[in-house]
Amino acid sequence: MQELKDTQNEPDHRNLSIDRVGVRQLRFPVQVLDKANSRQNTVATVSLAVDLPHHYKGTHMSRFVEVLNSHGPVLEVRAINRIPQELLKRLHAERAHVQIRFPFFLNKLAPVSGAPGLMDYEVIFELDVSKDCSDFLLTVCVPVTTLCPCSKAISERGAHNQRGLVTYSVRFLEPVWIEDLIRLVERCASSELFSLLKRPDEKHVTERAYDHPVFVEDLVRNVASASEAYPNLIWYRVEAENYESIHNHNAWAVIEKGGLPTPGVGSQVR
Amino acid sequence: MQELKDTQNEPDHRNLSIDRVGVRQLRFPVQVLDKANSRQNTVATVSLAVDLPHHYKGTHMSRFVEVLNSHGPVLEVRAINRIPQELLKRLHAERAHVQIRFPFFLNKLAPVSGAPGLMDYEVIFELDVSKDCSDFLLTVCVPVTTLCPCSKAISERGAHNQRGLVTYSVRFLEPVWIEDLIRLVERCASSELFSLLKRPDEKHVTERAYDHPVFVEDLVRNVASASEAYPNLIWYRVEAENYESIHNHNAWAVIEKGGLPTPGVGSQVR
Amino acid sequence: MQELKDTQNEPDHRNLSIDRVGVRQLRFPVQVLDKANSRQNTVATVSLAVDLPHHYKGTHMSRFVEVLNSHGPVLEVRAINRIPQELLKRLHAERAHVQIRFPFFLNKLAPVSGAPGLMDYEVIFELDVSKDCSDFLLTVCVPVTTLCPCSKAISERGAHNQRGLVTYSVRFLEPVWIEDLIRLVERCASSELFSLLKRPDEKHVTERAYDHPVFVEDLVRNVASASEAYPNLIWYRVEAENYESIHNHNAWAVIEKGGLPTPGVGSQVR
Amino acid sequence: MQELKDTQNEPDHRNLSIDRVGVRQLRFPVQVLDKANSRQNTVATVSLAVDLPHHYKGTHMSRFVEVLNSHGPVLEVRAINRIPQELLKRLHAERAHVQIRFPFFLNKLAPVSGAPGLMDYEVIFELDVSKDCSDFLLTVCVPVTTLCPCSKAISERGAHNQRGLVTYSVRFLEPVWIEDLIRLVERCASSELFSLLKRPDEKHVTERAYDHPVFVEDLVRNVASASEAYPNLIWYRVEAENYESIHNHNAWAVIEKGGLPTPGVGSQVR
Repeated sequence: MQELKDTQNEPDHRNLSIDRVGVRQLRFPVQVLDKANSRQNTVATVSLAVDLPHHYKGTHMSRFVEVLNSHGPVLEVRAINRIPQELLKRLHAERAHVQIRFPFFLNKLAPVSGAPGLMDYEVIFELDVSKDCSDFLLTVCVPVTTLCPCSKAISERGAHNQRGLVTYSVRFLEPVWIEDLIRLVERCASSELFSLLKRPDEKHVTERAYDHPVFVEDLVRNVASASEAYPNLIWYRVEAENYESIHNHNAWAVIEKGGLPTPGVGSQVR
Repeated sequence: MQELKDTQNEPDHRNLSIDRVGVRQLRFPVQVLDKANSRQNTVATVSLAVDLPHHYKGTHMSRFVEVLNSHGPVLEVRAINRIPQELLKRLHAERAHVQIRFPFFLNKLAPVSGAPGLMDYEVIFELDVSKDCSDFLLTVCVPVTTLCPCSKAISERGAHNQRGLVTYSVRFLEPVWIEDLIRLVERCASSELFSLLKRPDEKHVTERAYDHPVFVEDLVRNVASASEAYPNLIWYRVEAENYESIHNHNAWAVIEKGGLPTPGVGSQVR
Repeated sequence: MQELKDTQNEPDHRNLSIDRVGVRQLRFPVQVLDKANSRQNTVATVSLAVDLPHHYKGTHMSRFVEVLNSHGPVLEVRAINRIPQELLKRLHAERAHVQIRFPFFLNKLAPVSGAPGLMDYEVIFELDVSKDCSDFLLTVCVPVTTLCPCSKAISERGAHNQRGLVTYSVRFLEPVWIEDLIRLVERCASSELFSLLKRPDEKHVTERAYDHPVFVEDLVRNVASASEAYPNLIWYRVEAENYESIHNHNAWAVIEKGGLPTPGVGSQVR
Repeated sequence: MQELKDTQNEPDHRNLSIDRVGVRQLRFPVQVLDKANSRQNTVATVSLAVDLPHHYKGTHMSRFVEVLNSHGPVLEVRAINRIPQELLKRLHAERAHVQIRFPFFLNKLAPVSGAPGLMDYEVIFELDVSKDCSDFLLTVCVPVTTLCPCSKAISERGAHNQRGLVTYSVRFLEPVWIEDLIRLVERCASSELFSLLKRPDEKHVTERAYDHPVFVEDLVRNVASASEAYPNLIWYRVEAENYESIHNHNAWAVIEKGGLPTPGVGSQVR
């Protein structure tokens, strides 16, 4: 085979290292663990990146895809954890960043009839790894029902309610189950969602939601408060967005453990 | 200027005419008429296409963009109506297709306090024009509140409700106001939406929705029924989608005047 | 269990039948067949609908979800084909509509190095079934490289090229493989895409694309022309959209066997 | 008017302050300044938020919408700058966060023919304001052409190229023009994009891109390097994503002034 010029390996003189360079929006079949069936097949959207020292012109994009495909046609969860180290080695990098986003399914039983139905949740694994350190951020996106306490308090009948989405990210000491994080969030809402509800179930969730009104503020506080009760969860960020049934815009709230950075730090003061 | 080869003008021998060819996902400032202020500035996403006879290799893509830009930096609504004819002429075509999609704003007063607030709606103009005929399809996308009649009937308190979206397309004899189509749809729902609601308003819309429960089926039937009352509306299609507050999937329904085409016509019979 | 009111079963007096009513945006694990491995696990977005006669107030939304979940936690391709009949029966309907959209993976070998990598494609099954008739529409969405013949012809060096997306729908007499439809489309483009390309492969696809320039018009004509050669394909619609590398808008073209309906039929004449 | 219960004003006992609470996905007409015409009408997607001290149960969502609507039916750019202070006052908050995202149009002349055409760019204003400090982050999203240096170097003819998107955020001492940031980015790519290109223009940009190949790495370095030359730009983040014409995934790279935070800080060490 002819010797082709390796442009990427040429020196670079702009003296600027790159924080992250790689591939994004790659779809790949993955297999993750769940408590009920042990293995669950799903499809992930993957991004893979490394840092690039200032003296290299470019990274080798094909190697990211080779690392991803080297584990066969389905990426198992244990292989996901090995990918950052493989990227560090294959790309001669100091730091690797891997993000894997996929739908995760829970077989839930309707609350009264017990009828089974699969519910879907988005889950994101985010790994940021260097030789000495490793950061794993686990995010679950949990849709819920929220019923407005104000609307209930001021109205003679009914109360507006809607689907809301809680995006809950955690760092932890010991591994946690995705299901446990989902359950933690669902208990904090007016009601959890189900794929399949028969009439007695619909009555149940309607009354349950009416009896447990939460503002978007309550929802993030409830999740934050529940997180504080688990010493294993050393960091969390909770974001809730309500697709308001009475508005064409959304209500949202955010709590991050330790707070968001103060404005004005590292930026201009007027 | 050097004479550059005109590849598009070369003959083509595959003997296949093209139904539509052109440009898509162009954004352009537009100015449309409204009842209240007469002129409203907004931003459209535009697609422009013509047919291409079998003997031409290609169309001239730049001419679509020239036609669009020929009316200055803001496209007025009257100019929109002239574009199909200009495309027919500039592209030597038999048929032209123009789609213009934009957010449209209504200043609404809250139902009790009278507090004003702008509500946004998506509107689509679709023009399909040949030398002899002309078809104008007007679509308004109207978000509303829907409250479930079944949930209300079976529950001792409360009823699940949510934001729904009605996509309502019409053909007409005499020009219609966008606002009138929006109002027609809003009257068919459990409640209309508002951008700004103070507490007395929130009480009002909560109780209004509770007193006017509609299934997604009711919603499309109400809109179809209201359409039938206007002889000016010679065709309609109503689609409603409810972002169910108790499920992670949506309920939807469609009515098209005259019905959808029968399956099996023009396709295989097993 | 208490007898709960069945609101949906109540009579309706608006005298309007509904064309489609059901659920949408449901995600569900599916298993489809492929030529290489026989079974492939993926995740579908599902919509299920039936018609509703004018005398019923509402359909029973939970039954759609029951039908979907009745085949276990993974829906196999054979079960997909049974769903429309099950909906007709469970919902006492005359007509059922099922749409299943999922990513499909092909293990492709790079054209020179032979390095393997998974490529993803969107596939849509659309079934429209009544007691007497049945329509199955199969769509594959195939991303490709397109290189502009005009740009090549007029430029002294280089030619602009970009990713394009071909959306190819067919009706057929005998079952077809998804892979065969993908291959048919890929042969019509400047180059097919690969997930993994080493340098000799990149040289190959670059020169291949430069040697096979196609307009968006050529692309849809090539696919239409190739379709005409298969008597098994009794209908097709080809749509191509180029994410132009020199513009911020897209070029697109459509050919439908038999042509699009003439404007002015069923609408106003000015 | 009846005295309605103010649930939001009730005390809260969970002892958790909320970092951000407010409204999101509100659309509103805005008018921004440009160098050429001085005023440009466009439509923004708005989010407004404040912090909430631990002792309040909820914020007052309607006040955000009141503040937005208080400036009339079109929000001028000077009013945008006043909104954070108005939120602090109206909501009795310590910190306010405002994000305004809108399409921005530039009338560009084709490089050879001089033909005019409007190009669209996404622009984001992000304001994070407290009593003492104020942070203004300005982001422009600039689509460009990128031509692969490796593909050019190894191929006998042609080179793969594609549309790329540069997301460029800056903090600054003195106000900057949106146009100047766009131009800075466009000069760093293989070619800038145009809405309208006649054949001599297409030849020009094709050859221009072929003569100025850039990796995604070069692109972010070029933009970072150009930013370093302006002392007025005290912080920047450059992200580039290439919609690769030879792959179905994207190449991307990020440089942030000062670098991204080190992994392992504030998270678990394995």
